Amino acid sequence: MDDIIESLCKLDLPTCLRICAGTDGSVTHLLELMTGQVVRVKTRQQQVIEAGDKIAELLDISAGDAVNERIVLLCAGDVVYVYARSLVPIKRMPAGMEYDLTRADIPIGRILKEYAIESRREIDEIEVFESRVFGEECMVLSRKYRIIHDNMALMWINEMFPIDSRWNL
Amino acid sequence: MDDIIESLCKLDLPTCLRICAGTDGSVTHLLELMTGQVVRVKTRQQQVIEAGDKIAELLDISAGDAVNERIVLLCAGDVVYVYARSLVPIKRMPAGMEYDLTRADIPIGRILKEYAIESRREIDEIEVFESRVFGEECMVLSRKYRIIHDNMALMWINEMFPIDSRWNL
Repeated sequence: MDDIIESLCKLDLPTCLRICAGTDGSVTHLLELMTGQVVRVKTRQQQVIEAGDKIAELLDISAGDAVNERIVLLCAGDVVYVYARSLVPIKRMPAGMEYDLTRADIPIGRILKEYAIESRREIDEIEVFESRVFGEECMVLSRKYRIIHDNMALMWINEMFPIDSRWNL
Repeated sequence: MDDIIESLCKLDLPTCLRICAGTDGSVTHLLELMTGQVVRVKTRQQQVIEAGDKIAELLDISAGDAVNERIVLLCAGDVVYVYARSLVPIKRMPAGMEYDLTRADIPIGRILKEYAIESRREIDEIEVFESRVFGEECMVLSRKYRIIHDNMALMWINEMFPIDSRWNL
């Protein structure tokens, strides 16, 4: 059992939340399987920024490189399950992907499938803390991971999941 | 929502079974997250065969090519959750993988992670029928999928899951 799975199993979490937080596959995909509903993306923020030193290090790019930053909520029905911030270096996106990521409300799992991207996911960090990203202050589980494609980080993603009964699916 | 997810959501299945049967990530990984236990492989059969016409078509290789066939059970604690048959063309395996696949009881999800394989999964078929693969005759959910790497099928896998209360995790 790897360290991430072990850490998640030690926390007192609803099973469906533990599964989403630990999967090496698409969270959108799992949410649709769990809820039986189509997952929709609500884009909160989307902009192209210049990588500072910290982002450059996360993505192994040069400071000043263009990066697409997107903050979204993943919802099924009226329920918000995930808050996600993604950073994607523009120069690493396959042709066409930039349009889907920057101009349309499409989840990343569906974009990777659409473009038949071969990848692997490296979970770097899992934390639990209080946050207001879901409105009221509540405990959230946060994970940070990279989607690796052609041996480079195609995406860096930070997902936060509310730790509460909405995961009793 | 894609066709496979939609079909699975229409069936009356325990949530954890539906999740394992529909994921585009590692089933071993999900089983460990669901059960909190290390998943062990019990190898039932392992042999190198020559591809006949049918296997050659599944893997897009030539008839006569060497293929590793492995039949295993995936267990957590004393419970068997999955019966899996895999077919892997020897010539497509990265160096070293053949050893892990043919001589050791290592789950495929862990092998892909170990070799940092970038891949995507294409689910081809989902069926429900009666079977004796778990001992007593019972209803099973069967899925067939390919793990694609370098635009070729690295593996063809048929997993069967017993449809019963062991999935109430």
